[in-house]
Amino acid sequence: MRRLLLGIDLGGTNARAALVDAATGEVVAAHKLSHEERTPLAVVRTTATAVREAAAAAGVGPASLGTAGVGVAGQVLGASGMVLNAPNLGWRDVPFGDLLAAELGHPVRLLNDLSAAAWGERCFGAARGVDDAVLVFVGSGVGCGLILGGRLHEGAGGVAAELGHIKVTPRGVQPRKCGCGEWGCLEAYSGGMNLAARVRDDVADGKATAVLAAAGDASRISAAAVEQAYREGDPYARDLWAEVGELLGTAMANLVTVLNPARLVLGGSVLLGCPNLMRISRAHLGDRASRSARKSLSVELAGLGDDAGVVGAALLAGGAVRHAPIVN
Amino acid sequence: MRRLLLGIDLGGTNARAALVDAATGEVVAAHKLSHEERTPLAVVRTTATAVREAAAAAGVGPASLGTAGVGVAGQVLGASGMVLNAPNLGWRDVPFGDLLAAELGHPVRLLNDLSAAAWGERCFGAARGVDDAVLVFVGSGVGCGLILGGRLHEGAGGVAAELGHIKVTPRGVQPRKCGCGEWGCLEAYSGGMNLAARVRDDVADGKATAVLAAAGDASRISAAAVEQAYREGDPYARDLWAEVGELLGTAMANLVTVLNPARLVLGGSVLLGCPNLMRISRAHLGDRASRSARKSLSVELAGLGDDAGVVGAALLAGGAVRHAPIVN
Repeated sequence: MRRLLLGIDLGGTNARAALVDAATGEVVAAHKLSHEERTPLAVVRTTATAVREAAAAAGVGPASLGTAGVGVAGQVLGASGMVLNAPNLGWRDVPFGDLLAAELGHPVRLLNDLSAAAWGERCFGAARGVDDAVLVFVGSGVGCGLILGGRLHEGAGGVAAELGHIKVTPRGVQPRKCGCGEWGCLEAYSGGMNLAARVRDDVADGKATAVLAAAGDASRISAAAVEQAYREGDPYARDLWAEVGELLGTAMANLVTVLNPARLVLGGSVLLGCPNLMRISRAHLGDRASRSARKSLSVELAGLGDDAGVVGAALLAGGAVRHAPIVN
Repeated sequence: MRRLLLGIDLGGTNARAALVDAATGEVVAAHKLSHEERTPLAVVRTTATAVREAAAAAGVGPASLGTAGVGVAGQVLGASGMVLNAPNLGWRDVPFGDLLAAELGHPVRLLNDLSAAAWGERCFGAARGVDDAVLVFVGSGVGCGLILGGRLHEGAGGVAAELGHIKVTPRGVQPRKCGCGEWGCLEAYSGGMNLAARVRDDVADGKATAVLAAAGDASRISAAAVEQAYREGDPYARDLWAEVGELLGTAMANLVTVLNPARLVLGGSVLLGCPNLMRISRAHLGDRASRSARKSLSVELAGLGDDAGVVGAALLAGGAVRHAPIVN
């Protein structure tokens, strides 16, 4: 009889609960609910309802499930069950793990959503069986997950892998402000939300670009519209992708030089939806990672799509794939 | 009776063998010999002689020692005993581990010298007992060692932690060439050897600076002479330290943001010998590391000096300090 594990993906808009086959990583049943309110107690109730619906669809009682894994879009301290900062939910220092555990009646293990996705890709996706793997996702923000020595690396404070918040402003250049409140973060230049805001500002300032026509109207400007304008030969889009691709590619290259992973897994709606930006970023990655680190590297696209997070959270919390032993 | 372990520091000029107390990390006896020749077999003989002298001084037979740990200034693949690239020795793909093991009659475990130093500081120095620690040394080059999740992180190809070779040239600026053959590496701007070469070039080009007077003559220009000129108010030295301090501080900050260590250990002759460069670098580190990663960070100066490498190599090879268990 197969063993089912519970994984939850908690974002700013939805909670998605999934029952995952421990042996294959298959999502056997899933249920997604939108948050009606974003207060912690309301989100706990919504999440627990999604869990019960998913369990009913799989024909199991929720009580029979072991530790639930929850990937949270934000900073979490897994060991304590605290959500330190989840901007999309408007939360700071919320003991979500304890609250959800009390509601569900079984233990809960929190982790960052990109860490969950990295673990999912490591168990059953594009980094399967690899002990040193780095996941870089560029979507509305820039996220990262680190598998090092066969283990998920979460850092001393649980906030490792904040690749979106490395500082990339060149000396002497006025930095851009990031959603995190700091200046000059990689995400301020290359995350989808900030990219769109920057193009809207440029359009409002009267800069000539085909991006506006590609988008239809200013409110619909997005990375995808920049990509379309790039394909049409728009000089503005060409310059923007040159800059953003260099920043992303250099950040990936430096991560590879420092961590020497066997696998770099790329994903996220902006990277996957903008093949020209992906191509330019990968060219800089190839040029700028140290020669020695490039030798052991392969680059793959994320394989599990939206399921990576729930699969990874379920498997990590359920202990279904052991951390690899390392003999030094 | 105390247990002694054998650690060796193999640089471009010397081999230093030390017997290290497994329980305290104390260097009980040590012997250093210069390489007469840099051929692998000549270096094996010199190293083995240093080992026998150190063992004799400690009153033990070399055969009674377990696995020898060797920290090598270069890229090594610890598991295979291969030195992949050691520029100071002029070696590429030398099976030094096997050669030395045959000469000594017992097993040998190679690792990078900065990885050895990081492990030494983690066992008995400035990162004692810390599971997530990053070591950054700025001396003639820029080196780094990573302790992540209580383990030494060496990467998929054994070449992790090459912080000196991350690319830092701002967009549109002509990059400088690094000793590794690539362009725009951090070490090309901030390693002691490259710094001195750059100042010599500037002096030869007629740039006004007090560094030449501080050094005595052009051949003795060094980071220490820049530091002295800085103290005397030299504008050239001030601009140089502003640039180098920003590059080093930003690199440290980004490492902290991505890895979220509990401890950053700083060392190396350039950083320790140039307090103004250290101060400027640390100011940028404080400004640019993500707020959340800074919360769990403390910064310390390296505590074991030149002994860190032999102590770390001995303890890692001898298995005297276990990798910490991690429960996720």
